[in-house]
Amino acid sequence: MKIVVLGGDGYCGWATALYLSGRGQTVAIVDNLIRRQWDRDLGVETLTPIRTLAERVAVWNRSAANPIEVFEGDVTDYGFLSSMFREFRPEALVHFAEQRSAPYSMIDREHAVFTQSNNVLGTLNVLFAIKEFQPECHLVKLGTMGEYGTPNIDIEEGYIEIEHNGRKDTLPFPKQPGSFYHLTKVHDSHNISFACRIWGLRATDLNQGVVYGTVTDETARDEAFVNRFDYDEIFGTVLNRFCVQAAVGFPLTVYGKGGQTRGYLDIRDTVRCVELACLNPAAKGECRVYNQFTEQFSVLDLAHLVQAAGRKLGIEVAVQHLPDPRVEAEQHYYNAKHAKLADLGLQPHLLSESLLDSLMNIAVRYRDRIDQSLFLPRVNWRQPVNRRQPKEEMATAGAAK
Amino acid sequence: MKIVVLGGDGYCGWATALYLSGRGQTVAIVDNLIRRQWDRDLGVETLTPIRTLAERVAVWNRSAANPIEVFEGDVTDYGFLSSMFREFRPEALVHFAEQRSAPYSMIDREHAVFTQSNNVLGTLNVLFAIKEFQPECHLVKLGTMGEYGTPNIDIEEGYIEIEHNGRKDTLPFPKQPGSFYHLTKVHDSHNISFACRIWGLRATDLNQGVVYGTVTDETARDEAFVNRFDYDEIFGTVLNRFCVQAAVGFPLTVYGKGGQTRGYLDIRDTVRCVELACLNPAAKGECRVYNQFTEQFSVLDLAHLVQAAGRKLGIEVAVQHLPDPRVEAEQHYYNAKHAKLADLGLQPHLLSESLLDSLMNIAVRYRDRIDQSLFLPRVNWRQPVNRRQPKEEMATAGAAK
Repeated sequence: MKIVVLGGDGYCGWATALYLSGRGQTVAIVDNLIRRQWDRDLGVETLTPIRTLAERVAVWNRSAANPIEVFEGDVTDYGFLSSMFREFRPEALVHFAEQRSAPYSMIDREHAVFTQSNNVLGTLNVLFAIKEFQPECHLVKLGTMGEYGTPNIDIEEGYIEIEHNGRKDTLPFPKQPGSFYHLTKVHDSHNISFACRIWGLRATDLNQGVVYGTVTDETARDEAFVNRFDYDEIFGTVLNRFCVQAAVGFPLTVYGKGGQTRGYLDIRDTVRCVELACLNPAAKGECRVYNQFTEQFSVLDLAHLVQAAGRKLGIEVAVQHLPDPRVEAEQHYYNAKHAKLADLGLQPHLLSESLLDSLMNIAVRYRDRIDQSLFLPRVNWRQPVNRRQPKEEMATAGAAK
Repeated sequence: MKIVVLGGDGYCGWATALYLSGRGQTVAIVDNLIRRQWDRDLGVETLTPIRTLAERVAVWNRSAANPIEVFEGDVTDYGFLSSMFREFRPEALVHFAEQRSAPYSMIDREHAVFTQSNNVLGTLNVLFAIKEFQPECHLVKLGTMGEYGTPNIDIEEGYIEIEHNGRKDTLPFPKQPGSFYHLTKVHDSHNISFACRIWGLRATDLNQGVVYGTVTDETARDEAFVNRFDYDEIFGTVLNRFCVQAAVGFPLTVYGKGGQTRGYLDIRDTVRCVELACLNPAAKGECRVYNQFTEQFSVLDLAHLVQAAGRKLGIEVAVQHLPDPRVEAEQHYYNAKHAKLADLGLQPHLLSESLLDSLMNIAVRYRDRIDQSLFLPRVNWRQPVNRRQPKEEMATAGAAK
């Protein structure tokens, strides 16, 4: 199958592109390399030393059955997107090409506007390009479990049957996203669902939980394939950050009470879920929603698991409760369904098995590259800065809170 | 009260600005005059001859207790918006400054992207400006009943209590919007609700039905105040278009079966609803939703009412069923609640009373200005054109269907 991975130079995108290529698919990567630029702008760096896209793809292609093709460009540029469609003619399009950090979108007005503009208009372009050039192409779009927020009822997979005043309908599950970034995924979901309805496109919206880990079978094959591992407050997901903090004996930074519960998954399950979606395409006009995670944890659960794992490695690490820089419930009901990918054949990697191997050992191996100044939250949901501030000023603003 | 009306040169905006000014409020109009440009771009014109914004405001200000101030500029320009806030310091902000036509947003990719970018990013700017300059300012935002679509259950005012698997929560009412324009209103609703939650802003989201009529007490005072009356397929709302068609004996253009049922209101009720919202501001952190319409009709109901009204004026008019250019249910359940504005004191103008006075007579009076080539739908939901086409070509595309 010809699969294009938009955002194939990013954390999930790179692992996915290699996995699909390794499994015999004909893969193209589309990326504008902006994720690397954001690191430079924010003065942060992945823990793991990653190669340039050109380098890592060149090394992969030396031994690949089907070489990975690279289209460097921006999906918000319709001319570029059109030529990629005309040339590659994808049968499935996996869309990771969005700004995916909640704190990044909350830095200030410019970052909020950029995030919404980039994500929403980029996805609109994707929909129009599929309609224009490859109406049968299956869109596999990365959404987020964060679209749902934390309602006081069970979270279903995208839709819910509602009985009201004696009548019934199955309707989109109500959304309560928690950042300008999460909002873009909700906007996208509505736009995609509409495009499927009016044009008969096929889409799978993968509402993904928080991803952890960096190693997949493919990225482990060669030093050149090493994937990024973010631990800074902007792009670092919580479990990755905790492991890095533990590796240098820095107290784990729990926001508020730590009762915030979310769905989590190993990056090895991310790549498999995307493959399952591609191999089992949505029907014409169908907009499916799968909740893509394998286990639920509270932030405090994770802190305790990392403490225990640290102890096994002889590292004692404390837990530090910081005032929550986000506006969110710190204790709440949470029960999200996630049966549909399992029904398609997903065999989860559980955290208990991967915590030491795929997380703690990576953090320890690259300990010398850890910059502790990146641990503390500087972006505050309640008080966006109204212009781009230097790192130091933002740090002060966070501390003064 | 100091009230700024964004989009105050438009159909609803102009009537609202005059009404609020006439009722003793201190009003400023913000507008970039783009609505007039769209008419020129599309080769269409309002039935009623309207004056320039400068002229109509100058005449109004001759006899106004508080002159209306005008800020000419674009809300997507944050610098401009900031200076307006610093200078005028609004206590309420009425936001009509969006591209508000569903067919316009469905012309092609460029119009879809423009509509989403303009509406969503403009409203983001408004939220950030309120937060930065006037955190107590009450946002009165025009949404649309079209956000809800046509679910098979009763439509509530913004929120619905859901009982699911033995637990309960009150959640945002699920949305199923029917065009790239309607989608922007859903995106806005989510963004606004989030801003209220994290920053404690106050907002009222007025989910307005289809507006009809052009005369209000204030616009009737002087020929200089005449409001626009759109009847073309892009900006004309259905009832206005039917009246104009009747005036020239053109068969009323019903899309599909005509069972499409929506909420409707007289423009005199639009202005009163906005006033009621301003006089009764939302609480800090509250995002209220009011369904703003007074009566429900199907399209066929309206066609028959216009036929009957025509007969009274000695005009015989036929009803013509065209293939529906939109993707929508042509027969469906529809029962939408609209109690909250009535509870605040709204006394509706019913269609039975206004049809002849405020609609048919206007259409007949300006009969000589009617361009019949604007009646037939050229924009097709199923087949967007992929570049901007001249009017003739679009007409052909529509007819070929």
